[in-house]
Amino acid sequence: MSNKKIRVAICGYGNLGKGVREAIERNDDMELVAILTRRDPEKVAKQISASAKVVPMNEAIEWVDKVDVMIMCGGSATDLPKQVPTFARLFCTVDSFDTHANIPEYLKAVDEKAKAGGNVSIISVGWDPGMFSNMRAYAEAVLPVSHTYTFWGRGVSQGHSDAIRRIEGVKDARQYTIPVPEAMERVRAGKNPELSTREKHTRECFVVAEEGADLAAIEKEIVTMPNYFADYDTTVHFISQEELDKNHSGLPHGGSVISCGETGYASKQVIEYSLKLDSNPEFTGSVLVAYARAAYRMKQEGMTGAKTVLDVPPIMLNVRPREEVIADLL
Amino acid sequence: MSNKKIRVAICGYGNLGKGVREAIERNDDMELVAILTRRDPEKVAKQISASAKVVPMNEAIEWVDKVDVMIMCGGSATDLPKQVPTFARLFCTVDSFDTHANIPEYLKAVDEKAKAGGNVSIISVGWDPGMFSNMRAYAEAVLPVSHTYTFWGRGVSQGHSDAIRRIEGVKDARQYTIPVPEAMERVRAGKNPELSTREKHTRECFVVAEEGADLAAIEKEIVTMPNYFADYDTTVHFISQEELDKNHSGLPHGGSVISCGETGYASKQVIEYSLKLDSNPEFTGSVLVAYARAAYRMKQEGMTGAKTVLDVPPIMLNVRPREEVIADLL
Repeated sequence: MSNKKIRVAICGYGNLGKGVREAIERNDDMELVAILTRRDPEKVAKQISASAKVVPMNEAIEWVDKVDVMIMCGGSATDLPKQVPTFARLFCTVDSFDTHANIPEYLKAVDEKAKAGGNVSIISVGWDPGMFSNMRAYAEAVLPVSHTYTFWGRGVSQGHSDAIRRIEGVKDARQYTIPVPEAMERVRAGKNPELSTREKHTRECFVVAEEGADLAAIEKEIVTMPNYFADYDTTVHFISQEELDKNHSGLPHGGSVISCGETGYASKQVIEYSLKLDSNPEFTGSVLVAYARAAYRMKQEGMTGAKTVLDVPPIMLNVRPREEVIADLL
Repeated sequence: MSNKKIRVAICGYGNLGKGVREAIERNDDMELVAILTRRDPEKVAKQISASAKVVPMNEAIEWVDKVDVMIMCGGSATDLPKQVPTFARLFCTVDSFDTHANIPEYLKAVDEKAKAGGNVSIISVGWDPGMFSNMRAYAEAVLPVSHTYTFWGRGVSQGHSDAIRRIEGVKDARQYTIPVPEAMERVRAGKNPELSTREKHTRECFVVAEEGADLAAIEKEIVTMPNYFADYDTTVHFISQEELDKNHSGLPHGGSVISCGETGYASKQVIEYSLKLDSNPEFTGSVLVAYARAAYRMKQEGMTGAKTVLDVPPIMLNVRPREEVIADLL
């Protein structure tokens, strides 16, 4: 291991970018050299105490020889599909692209550019996709005769919270996704249940209404909203802004991947992986940083192209030398 | 993917060898071509309905060109340290060597021979070491500021059961290792407790005594036995052979790897991986078979030497093509 630190940059500085910055500070083999932003760099610089430079995103090309890995912290809807293929031509990248259905197409687009640039890009890193994907893959490989279920929550869904905020008369809102305990128990018991969307999760909404708003109309609009709420049992609580700020300001999340399979003649084997996260963006940021280390090492080993968490051996993530990790953790 | 099946052989046919045989039957891309045994091959052949040949272990060399991966199912105390380096010169191997303290030395011995033979040997595969090792490594990488604890059980420890059976006056015995729920709760709560051996696990023994044996003396010998029981709170129940056979004939096991860490300023992040296994040898056998696939693929890719589960990307374990796994599981 060389003593040279891995030079990391962050592209996009929202909640996730902040989580990445804090994670880099806890990893001694890395240094944050730049934060790239579309906003006013001076305003962003005021938010952070780090020594990293804050620069405009359109000056990225000037950082090509000064950055080993670019951690892409934009959104999956519009930022990442546009930014990552462009950046992959110039930098090793890691991102948390999480639009599951579009992953194959995205992987292909990034792979082409990363190969052309001689870089490694690890896509869709975080906890789901990410650590949960690893768990689903391990379970399927180890238990070919099995069913794997993923439950999310209890945690804040930012997409669903945003959807509520767009309703007329809503000032602020926070939405929790909650797994149904009975469904989890049926899975653990090996019943391989067919579970509808409604049977797996419920949704709980805390809403601050504007003065004089029609609460019944807001509630109806939430619980009947297609895609977001119509297929779920949804509870709506109207609360004050003070209460929302006091009790619902965090971004906790988590969930479980539960696999129940059979071996031999009728032996039941249950594998469960679960996360309880006080801060979703800080945990996702921590996973991104560990995989940034892997991207750097894979390029050092001569690999190129787009990879996923499934392509990365666990040993590549660890800061310590292989022999030490094997002696301590195997 | 070629349609040619991976040709697998089993070396050593006890409980684990049986678990491996059953696992191979559930994996369509593999075929069991031979079982190597030190016992009378004809007697072993009678136990199985499979089409595999049962042959004497000392004829292993004749199988060099007919076997892609040899799954080593001997014991860690004496069989594996002797057999695996020898076999690694001739075959790709997978084994479940589980004497944690000797792993570095063992890895080195196997690595030398595997490299000389141009083979890949994956050592210490199973659930601990094995899947639990992967979880410890992931947790340390993702949460550099964290503590990880491993709890085992509730499950049958064959080593401890054997130790009881060696006591005078004992006809048969089964020992369960049981994690202490309060200790697990303290870990999950993020208290990073210092836990003594006694605080982490208790031991429960079901003992069939010979007629007229001194039960009090047997109990005393068990609970004071150094290394095995003296450091634990141990409960001894004397039962009949019928009851032992009826209620304690299985080999269930399991356990949990729990990591509690901190990110950002004070966000608590908890990762928990747990196994509840009806059959320890069948699950271990299933993990060995998945890693046998990886050993075969790694050799195909030109790798050689001794590897551990930490060196293997999850994608290498899965029977399905990479693109399909990414589309389905990422």
